[in-house]
Amino acid sequence: MHILVFNAGSSSLKFSMFETADDMREVFKGSFDRFQQGRCDFRFRGGASNESGEMQCASIDVAIAEIPAILKRFGLPDPDAIGHRITHGGARFSSAALLDETTIAAIEALNPLAPLHNPANLQAVRLGRRLWQDRPQVAVFDTAFHQSNPPFATTYAVPKSWREAGLRRYGFHGTSHKYVALRAAQEVGRPLDDLQLVSVHLGNGASVCAVNRGESMDSSMGMTPLEGLVMGTRSGDVDPGAFGFLNREFGLSPAEIENALYNDSGLKGLTGSSDMRDIEDLAATGNREAQLAIEIYAYRAKKYVGAYAAAMGGLDAVVFTGGIGENSPSMRRRICDGLDFMGLQLDHDRNQAVDLANAAAPQIQAYGSRVRVFVTETAEQLMIARETAAVLALPQPAFEPIPVAVSARHVHLSKEAVTALFGPGYALTPETPLRQPGHWAAKERVVLQGPKGQLDRVAILGPIRPRTQIEVSRTDSFSLGINVPVRESGKLDKTPVVTIVGPAGSITTDGLIVAARHIHTNPRDAARLGLEDGEFVDVRVGEPERGLVFARTLVRVGATSFTEMHIDTDEANAAGIGAGAEGAIIDDHATVHARAPI
Amino acid sequence: MHILVFNAGSSSLKFSMFETADDMREVFKGSFDRFQQGRCDFRFRGGASNESGEMQCASIDVAIAEIPAILKRFGLPDPDAIGHRITHGGARFSSAALLDETTIAAIEALNPLAPLHNPANLQAVRLGRRLWQDRPQVAVFDTAFHQSNPPFATTYAVPKSWREAGLRRYGFHGTSHKYVALRAAQEVGRPLDDLQLVSVHLGNGASVCAVNRGESMDSSMGMTPLEGLVMGTRSGDVDPGAFGFLNREFGLSPAEIENALYNDSGLKGLTGSSDMRDIEDLAATGNREAQLAIEIYAYRAKKYVGAYAAAMGGLDAVVFTGGIGENSPSMRRRICDGLDFMGLQLDHDRNQAVDLANAAAPQIQAYGSRVRVFVTETAEQLMIARETAAVLALPQPAFEPIPVAVSARHVHLSKEAVTALFGPGYALTPETPLRQPGHWAAKERVVLQGPKGQLDRVAILGPIRPRTQIEVSRTDSFSLGINVPVRESGKLDKTPVVTIVGPAGSITTDGLIVAARHIHTNPRDAARLGLEDGEFVDVRVGEPERGLVFARTLVRVGATSFTEMHIDTDEANAAGIGAGAEGAIIDDHATVHARAPI
Repeated sequence: MHILVFNAGSSSLKFSMFETADDMREVFKGSFDRFQQGRCDFRFRGGASNESGEMQCASIDVAIAEIPAILKRFGLPDPDAIGHRITHGGARFSSAALLDETTIAAIEALNPLAPLHNPANLQAVRLGRRLWQDRPQVAVFDTAFHQSNPPFATTYAVPKSWREAGLRRYGFHGTSHKYVALRAAQEVGRPLDDLQLVSVHLGNGASVCAVNRGESMDSSMGMTPLEGLVMGTRSGDVDPGAFGFLNREFGLSPAEIENALYNDSGLKGLTGSSDMRDIEDLAATGNREAQLAIEIYAYRAKKYVGAYAAAMGGLDAVVFTGGIGENSPSMRRRICDGLDFMGLQLDHDRNQAVDLANAAAPQIQAYGSRVRVFVTETAEQLMIARETAAVLALPQPAFEPIPVAVSARHVHLSKEAVTALFGPGYALTPETPLRQPGHWAAKERVVLQGPKGQLDRVAILGPIRPRTQIEVSRTDSFSLGINVPVRESGKLDKTPVVTIVGPAGSITTDGLIVAARHIHTNPRDAARLGLEDGEFVDVRVGEPERGLVFARTLVRVGATSFTEMHIDTDEANAAGIGAGAEGAIIDDHATVHARAPI
Repeated sequence: MHILVFNAGSSSLKFSMFETADDMREVFKGSFDRFQQGRCDFRFRGGASNESGEMQCASIDVAIAEIPAILKRFGLPDPDAIGHRITHGGARFSSAALLDETTIAAIEALNPLAPLHNPANLQAVRLGRRLWQDRPQVAVFDTAFHQSNPPFATTYAVPKSWREAGLRRYGFHGTSHKYVALRAAQEVGRPLDDLQLVSVHLGNGASVCAVNRGESMDSSMGMTPLEGLVMGTRSGDVDPGAFGFLNREFGLSPAEIENALYNDSGLKGLTGSSDMRDIEDLAATGNREAQLAIEIYAYRAKKYVGAYAAAMGGLDAVVFTGGIGENSPSMRRRICDGLDFMGLQLDHDRNQAVDLANAAAPQIQAYGSRVRVFVTETAEQLMIARETAAVLALPQPAFEPIPVAVSARHVHLSKEAVTALFGPGYALTPETPLRQPGHWAAKERVVLQGPKGQLDRVAILGPIRPRTQIEVSRTDSFSLGINVPVRESGKLDKTPVVTIVGPAGSITTDGLIVAARHIHTNPRDAARLGLEDGEFVDVRVGEPERGLVFARTLVRVGATSFTEMHIDTDEANAAGIGAGAEGAIIDDHATVHARAPI
């Protein structure tokens, strides 16, 4: 199968053809840019041929129309599918989506969020659909990877009406961050789900992303690609008070200020040049503006690395990519120097000798550095081809109702915990059998204590487990006054502590979680429902009018499990459901799963 | 001596009287607020008396005019001096300043930077000067402590004309951050200069400050008090792209957006209430907006703690202050949880049992936590009284010329380094004697290598030292491609490494610094010049028209030192001076020194 990938900007177009047979090999690469006076620059590379130069071409539309003939000249077939890079998928798209009238209208509705980018992307989509009418086309969003960011990371503290209009953080460069995070995990030799990574993409646009256990948790770009790091011509973070000041002092309108922040700021605003290579050379000759620009650039990136390590509660690796991230050893060193206190130390020789040929991802940390540091080229086009193939390969899931059980707060106790809470030799008394075979609720109860308050008469579920686990709802966590992470059962690494009080004593132990909603199922039911262990699906629960769609519900396949969805009391209240409810899997889009090899 | 302290807002006034005899005891405390319909609320406390209620009072002006009579009623004398809290001191004021026509005009010129705050502060100054015409009045700036922030922390990546108009980061709450940092250092039992602290001020306004080795290095508020953390009614950080969006979608002007970001955002924008106590209670009952607001509030603060630890390259202590910082154990826990990876662990019982009576600053970290965590009440009024007294006590320095020497890049080598670079048993050859007795430049030279480039023929200064130290200029650091900190000679803790190459071998060693400019002097000259070891002074170097004022020049008194100021080649070039130059100490304002006990 051949997949054509489009990356269309307002004044340039990059396109690549991938052949899926050989694990996605790029067989052709082309670009058009610098459109002026009816002409543009082009560059094509396919097989052993290389063409570049200037051609007559009034606009991107005209250029795109030439592509079928170009592909033919290079001995390539028509594409079987087309993947499009779309900048802004808003809150609507958390993964790649098949392009049809509905999705195109949904993308168009997001234009206010990305007035510079989305219309240009859509123009390429429309032309692509006209040229290859019978071929599926897929939208791959720069924002999709970040849709897993928790609301506390995406919400600005602004008036409600603004938030409702879409003013929130989305994050961009998602395709790049996801690729380099997967690439680093591959080098580490562990699943991405087990790692806490910071991805540092330093190109003409630049952003940092916290990739926490396989998911994007936060990223430095916000509602727009203007927030965050210093970039080639964009300012990155600026005091929101600047607008009032500039308006009063210079009479500038929001549009004028915004235009200057996009086009005349960043490295260009600081030095006159947006090219870090020139700036590094200038700095070495004593140019103070260039020196300051380099320092600001590195300092901002370093602060984000520290902030995201704190946000995730740990750091296993930092990955550098993008033109500056790949090519400036001194910039990498500036960002990493001084982070020994969090276990990160560079090897200066390895940092100097980075070779990225053949998609290498060399490690440049010092021997003994707890945190690994990688450098690798990003491969957004390749990822777009992969996501496109994944959308097309997706089987349609069965629409079959699944029973829903509501879990109130409870604890699973270890043998040691039972001894500490109830006395030596004590055995819990099974009282109520649960639907999962062999599981029961005990007659005994315990108390949970936190810095704000306590929860009385908390149920104990049996049987005894090797490690104590305490499951509370989000609201319970606020009664306790503890920030409790949402976790899959059994994944208790770095969870907060809570005090459990029993009749014979109390213990303070970690293992406190808000259980991630999940579907228990067995291999037979899983096959029928089209589910796989570890995947995430969207499930509608409750009445169509009052119910809720629970996005990202984890599937857990166990040999003897009863097929059932588990949600907590907060989720049940939100969906307005009680006993006997059922859910239906409605997930209709695909994603390259974080656990998959790349 | 009695010092009256004013803290005047646009709709409230707090004032306190301090008696200097007893190490600054607060002998009276009063406030006026809620001015409406010709009346206002008041509260006075002095000695054993306590008065509060409503009184007839049309405006703050009228209220201030009442103060002499109120003081008299409480048996207090007229103040000997008045200290005023001034919000914005811009780039002009790096310490407290005596208020005269010149300084008042300078503060007034800063109104565009703080249109809500400075005019209200100045109104109180003018009334104070009218009421107590013959008493000195002193301005203590919220921004002054942060004037030590390096340019890479204060510079926004925006067009030059905007930066020249004053658009840069200033930081606020400086008086509070300075006080609590000093208070924590006192509890640690080490000088603040030796510590890397993060001060977390969580009041109605909120900010985080990186206090690096005695100086503010960065703070979360920027040009205005709008940037940074989520506050009671202020948004904190927002994508600068939000303004264009809000203007296009809602037709809002910059002034309307700014007004909403100041008054209808933050906790209030998220929940309707700006009071964290109410929000914590609401969250525990299941209110989702309150829950989210708490999470956002804590998450932002946590990210700043991580960012500033990375910025400083280490963290010895975190200090919580302000209403929320002092009173919410669960908020402190949310911010600190998960920071074990950087050596910070709370003791949950101590966190719970914080008692701040008698200006206590209890430690709440766990046993074995490398990072200490403090909670303490802030004392801005007390600090204002102290800074006021310090300005008045300042002796006028002698205006005496000091010879200036320009230090080119050089190294001081240890015995081991000489062996490694020149071979076993090698002794360096003294060639040129230096002005400091017993010091010389050697005949031998070495090469320095960094990730970007190398510096050839670098001088070696003798005699041999216990530890190798490499001193380069700022420009040299960019030739090497290494971020080199400005450090006092001999303070080599956590300095970056560089490779030194000699004829017999090479070594890679830390100890690379840009030497902080300094004045060597001896006890006799120091006494005559009014200088003390370890203090900082401002020095004018070069012609009045072309020269420069070097702020914060360190004074180092040595028994046999020749009195001389040392600057590096970049500084000499900037000041346009060569051999034989002289400097003059022009420091004319005072500050409560970071090393002083409080």
